[in-house]
Amino acid sequence: MTTELRGGGSGTSGPAAPPVAMTVAGTDSGGSAGLACDLKTFHNCGVHGVFAVTAVTVQNSLGVSGVHPIPPDTVAAQIDAVASDIGVGAAKTGMLASAEIIRAVAAAFQRNGIGRGLASPLVIDPVAASMHGDPLLREDALDAIRDLLFPVATLVTPNLDEVRLLTGITVSDRRSAERAARALYEFGPESVLVKGGHLANDPRSTDLLFDGETFTELPAERIDTPHTHGGGDSLGAATTAALAKGEALVDAVRAGKRYVTCAVATAYPLGAGVGPVGHFWRLSDGG
Amino acid sequence: MTTELRGGGSGTSGPAAPPVAMTVAGTDSGGSAGLACDLKTFHNCGVHGVFAVTAVTVQNSLGVSGVHPIPPDTVAAQIDAVASDIGVGAAKTGMLASAEIIRAVAAAFQRNGIGRGLASPLVIDPVAASMHGDPLLREDALDAIRDLLFPVATLVTPNLDEVRLLTGITVSDRRSAERAARALYEFGPESVLVKGGHLANDPRSTDLLFDGETFTELPAERIDTPHTHGGGDSLGAATTAALAKGEALVDAVRAGKRYVTCAVATAYPLGAGVGPVGHFWRLSDGG
Repeated sequence: MTTELRGGGSGTSGPAAPPVAMTVAGTDSGGSAGLACDLKTFHNCGVHGVFAVTAVTVQNSLGVSGVHPIPPDTVAAQIDAVASDIGVGAAKTGMLASAEIIRAVAAAFQRNGIGRGLASPLVIDPVAASMHGDPLLREDALDAIRDLLFPVATLVTPNLDEVRLLTGITVSDRRSAERAARALYEFGPESVLVKGGHLANDPRSTDLLFDGETFTELPAERIDTPHTHGGGDSLGAATTAALAKGEALVDAVRAGKRYVTCAVATAYPLGAGVGPVGHFWRLSDGG
Repeated sequence: MTTELRGGGSGTSGPAAPPVAMTVAGTDSGGSAGLACDLKTFHNCGVHGVFAVTAVTVQNSLGVSGVHPIPPDTVAAQIDAVASDIGVGAAKTGMLASAEIIRAVAAAFQRNGIGRGLASPLVIDPVAASMHGDPLLREDALDAIRDLLFPVATLVTPNLDEVRLLTGITVSDRRSAERAARALYEFGPESVLVKGGHLANDPRSTDLLFDGETFTELPAERIDTPHTHGGGDSLGAATTAALAKGEALVDAVRAGKRYVTCAVATAYPLGAGVGPVGHFWRLSDGG
């Protein structure tokens, strides 16, 4: 088997280096969310995933029962080691665990050219809690994400709970979604994606993208499944993968939406609780 | 997109739960080896990967510059959380970091029915050092793997350096490979795979499988590439995935060999040092 993966190459007969995306995230031992979900999504998008682990969680389909944060210096050292040798086409953040880790990550991004206006676009998913409501961030740390990471973000992707925690706004319709997007934009990111708009009377799953001037509605089929673990991570990771390939922001977000729609459509049961969104649909034989 | 991934299901319209494989391993921030490699391989084999992180390494294509071991209790708790809820079809180990972690892992395997003669087959890859020679195991810990994990292993998969450390035998031909396999078998595993036999005058990459009675030669095309990071992990993970699907041991090892041959054939450059074996060949459009 000698599949030629990409054209070009540099005088060698094997495949050339693929685009590279980084995730700075926690692990989910159940393999549904966090690092594992980001890496599967990067892989499925044809992008090599590199990463910095921020925390190891003890987790299954029922919830999170333990968290071991990684020392901030070790988190930053992972970013430095990868960025200085392999390079980073685009990066995203997931669970950041503590304000100390957020400070170390923000400094590492800056010295490695990761962030808006720098060499590598940056997607900030301000993860505050697991889908079961287990805290994934110490109480003061959401402030640190807002103050240290939103101003250097190419895109922020809060869900409605995170929007409420960050802005005090409860999104219930298009009007409140726009108000929330403007409030989030004031924190300094280049663009804001308010996820899961739940617009009144909308049978679809519509997200709202705002770049400071234009609102873009991103509708998608709403799919009825109880198994949605990793859905938010998949959206952010697929968007980041598209940015690593050099796509423009709005195209990258559309690619992210297409990915997560396929993932939710192929979600599967696992364990006694909430199963993961699916990734096997990208394999040549569907898994 | 509503691809039906597997037949059956249980009265629901979505895909049924896939087979599940576990890896107990360290992370490589470069995304080439360890946890990331195991998870990409499981995914490519149509198996959901769950895991316990044993250590976070700071690593790129040039080597390992830092290791943060996870507390043994947290390693064991990850195994317990996943096995008790999601279940484990088969398991493998990679980097285990220290004797304390090995003791905790051995006890967790036993109480969760993972090991030879128990519900879930177990593949032990006695990882002692990175491919750059950086130690991934404290000095006394290889003894702990031999004493605590070999006797409960369905299969052990040492490379030639690990064979020499474990048995004192330097494999140089079929005769010494057989002698090493017999010596390793005496430590108690159900089967032994001596990897990369380098048999005299053999232009192929031949591994030798021994079950205490029969020697089975597993030849494969030898592929000339400098980018082999994650090759050993891919072989072990693909073998474990096949065991999780219920395949017999010799068939599972053959599946592992087929996987790693495709992976080495599609290896790619990454960073200034050793690039990874490839996994994109399993995607529907080749990545």
